[in-house]
Amino acid sequence: MKRVRIVIIGGVAAGASAAGKAARTNPDAHITMLEKGPYISYANCGLPYYISGEIPDRGKLIIRRPEDMRKKYGIETYVNTEVIKIERPAKKVMVRDLTDNSTREIEYDKLIIATGAKTFRPPIPGLDAKNVFTLRTIPDIDAIEKYIRDAYPRRAAVLGAGYIGIEVVDVLRKRGIETGLFEMLTQALPQMDPDMSKYIEDKMEKAGINLFLGDAVEKLETDTAGNAVRVVTKNGKSMDVDMVIASLGVKPDVKLAKEAGLEIGEYALITDDYMRTSDPDIYAAGDVIQVNHLVTGKPTWSPLAGPANLQGKVAGCNAAGGIMKYRGVLRTSIVQFNGLAIATTGLTEKEAVKEELDYYPVTIESTSNSNYITGAKPLHIKAIFMRNTQRLLGAQVVGESGADKRIDIFATALMAKMNARDLEHLDLAYSPQYSHSLDGINVVGTVAGDRG
Amino acid sequence: MKRVRIVIIGGVAAGASAAGKAARTNPDAHITMLEKGPYISYANCGLPYYISGEIPDRGKLIIRRPEDMRKKYGIETYVNTEVIKIERPAKKVMVRDLTDNSTREIEYDKLIIATGAKTFRPPIPGLDAKNVFTLRTIPDIDAIEKYIRDAYPRRAAVLGAGYIGIEVVDVLRKRGIETGLFEMLTQALPQMDPDMSKYIEDKMEKAGINLFLGDAVEKLETDTAGNAVRVVTKNGKSMDVDMVIASLGVKPDVKLAKEAGLEIGEYALITDDYMRTSDPDIYAAGDVIQVNHLVTGKPTWSPLAGPANLQGKVAGCNAAGGIMKYRGVLRTSIVQFNGLAIATTGLTEKEAVKEELDYYPVTIESTSNSNYITGAKPLHIKAIFMRNTQRLLGAQVVGESGADKRIDIFATALMAKMNARDLEHLDLAYSPQYSHSLDGINVVGTVAGDRG
Repeated sequence: MKRVRIVIIGGVAAGASAAGKAARTNPDAHITMLEKGPYISYANCGLPYYISGEIPDRGKLIIRRPEDMRKKYGIETYVNTEVIKIERPAKKVMVRDLTDNSTREIEYDKLIIATGAKTFRPPIPGLDAKNVFTLRTIPDIDAIEKYIRDAYPRRAAVLGAGYIGIEVVDVLRKRGIETGLFEMLTQALPQMDPDMSKYIEDKMEKAGINLFLGDAVEKLETDTAGNAVRVVTKNGKSMDVDMVIASLGVKPDVKLAKEAGLEIGEYALITDDYMRTSDPDIYAAGDVIQVNHLVTGKPTWSPLAGPANLQGKVAGCNAAGGIMKYRGVLRTSIVQFNGLAIATTGLTEKEAVKEELDYYPVTIESTSNSNYITGAKPLHIKAIFMRNTQRLLGAQVVGESGADKRIDIFATALMAKMNARDLEHLDLAYSPQYSHSLDGINVVGTVAGDRG
Repeated sequence: MKRVRIVIIGGVAAGASAAGKAARTNPDAHITMLEKGPYISYANCGLPYYISGEIPDRGKLIIRRPEDMRKKYGIETYVNTEVIKIERPAKKVMVRDLTDNSTREIEYDKLIIATGAKTFRPPIPGLDAKNVFTLRTIPDIDAIEKYIRDAYPRRAAVLGAGYIGIEVVDVLRKRGIETGLFEMLTQALPQMDPDMSKYIEDKMEKAGINLFLGDAVEKLETDTAGNAVRVVTKNGKSMDVDMVIASLGVKPDVKLAKEAGLEIGEYALITDDYMRTSDPDIYAAGDVIQVNHLVTGKPTWSPLAGPANLQGKVAGCNAAGGIMKYRGVLRTSIVQFNGLAIATTGLTEKEAVKEELDYYPVTIESTSNSNYITGAKPLHIKAIFMRNTQRLLGAQVVGESGADKRIDIFATALMAKMNARDLEHLDLAYSPQYSHSLDGINVVGTVAGDRG
């Protein structure tokens, strides 16, 4: 029997997971993984924490090296290797070696597209200045780290108040750099409800971060050396800066897939539950695809590491002849600033409004654990329920301790389609250091059950 | 319409919850709460942490005072008042005022029994010595605190290695008292599997605790002043001591219920899902009753604060004319020693064996969060699954950080009757400080799914 040839485009989260799972599923498969950048399988979510010093060993950011993939799984791995074309009729990909610009073709029986997302760069004048950075890759953090060490920036602007923006602001705070955060929308973390992201805004302001919300960046003024020296907004506000980090969002990198004629949806590349695109020999996983939202049942785009890894496993398994089905996402996520975490799962109230659902919100104030123990921290919990059925639709939690726990309980409850009374009756672990005899989750269930 | 008269026997966890819920359910109800001890509604799970100093304000242990109950809910509350008899035909209780020994009768339309549990005292010679304490009530901690301050004990023995025993050992360690822990069974925390409680045993030994496991206490030798000075075991081991804390377990306090002819089960007083005893006008809640185990579907006894509070609410609601149904317990619990938590939910492997289930265990080593971040802590996870269906039956987690989170996710999954693949596909919150892109829970799901 001929060995199945699996080619994987992209070697970070989804790509590396796909490769490993394919190799475990079919040890006879001939697997080739192609990565445009210089590194595979790195901890992209950890990158900000290298700059803050919380990751003392840069080497630890790289989970696997090409030689590991070869030795452990027999996976041929090429970095600095860009796929420039997918030729579906001939079942081959055209690749370019970025070190010498040479090109060659690689044939596949099954192809996995894991090209991920690319940084969104709006046409803001000055955004190409020398001291404007993004934070997506290991070369990115090397450049930021080098600049901070060499140029001693005192003031920085962060453009965009999404997850990465908040993390970068926190990292710059830890490095002692005066920071301004610029966001076109009227709140930090626009994916959250404003009444919840308010806690993070307050925390940032208390830490001395200058917030420019509800105001678009008009331009970056540059000096003669080509460095940005001032951020100017549409409303006429400005901040003098020594460096800028742009975290203005990402877009799915569907270029190759689109050129190959694969079906693209409202948000990104379309796959079925087996991660198969409109071409049955081509799979896709990670930030390049749109996925099923488990609450709405509609497509959504959720460029996060956990789902990307799981989708990669599903694609790798199925491409290698196994059977694994993907279920979808709740868009569960967590981010923190200066120890204050904000987390979400399922629908926010904003999304429930947009979906025109007959919902009702429940907001309670709780604490991480028993109030009488030293160190108990406030916990703000908001959950959204469907009127009449009282089904849980989503939740957001903010707190310095235990927000991650509560959001994961809510996420598990959402996966199980629980309602308010189910939450009330959850038998959770109680000891005064960890929770309450009836946890905030139970209280939310009681309040929602009595009110809905 | 006549006001319904509700009498509640016991005013701590279940009793106080029942009273509050009954008052909210039916503001016209005439509610009387009778508590044998001097305090109602105190944080019994917090008592050890008062002695360790983690609860700086003793007053905070008392959640509600009799005057709060009167003012807030109009509940007549009597402390130092013991119910000595339930007269079912006449629908009244005979009570004794413990301050002056006077007796009187109180009529009820609905009665709620929340007499809780009582300390188990085996016939060990010397156990009645002056410096032998138990830790169940506020007077207990006052006595212990006074003794430590007055007598400066250098060495203490803790008898019994259940939850309270472990907490007391930790508290004595923090007070700088050399401590020996005596347990008849061959492991600490006999409710856990030995491969998991081993981590706690190791932690205790590293902290200098002397463990006497698998060896019963034969006697406490006393001096002429009536103080215990030495613990001697059946195997001939001994330890010189200045004080002893006995935490040899508790038993449901069913005396009143039994004398009243109510149906008693294998473990404790029987109720239906509405917390109604065999007498339709008498409800019961808390440590005095046995409850449905949500995994086995069989009765169990689970004297823990969370379920007691919820059962109290159910009893109070139904006694006051509302409708609320109790579901049962997973016996979820958590305890910690010197920062190392051990938690359990659902069935242990020992229990699966006893139930003669066709199960299989999955044990993995994970960490609290991404390994590359400073401060990630080991996390030992064990879960039990049903062969073929791969249904989750129970889990145990040990770790210095994040054990409480994982056990609550498992508990929620158990409530939803999830299987291995459900765990694999849980969309949990990821950020390097809080978890992994695929959490230990997901990994357990994958391993169990592939193996079952």
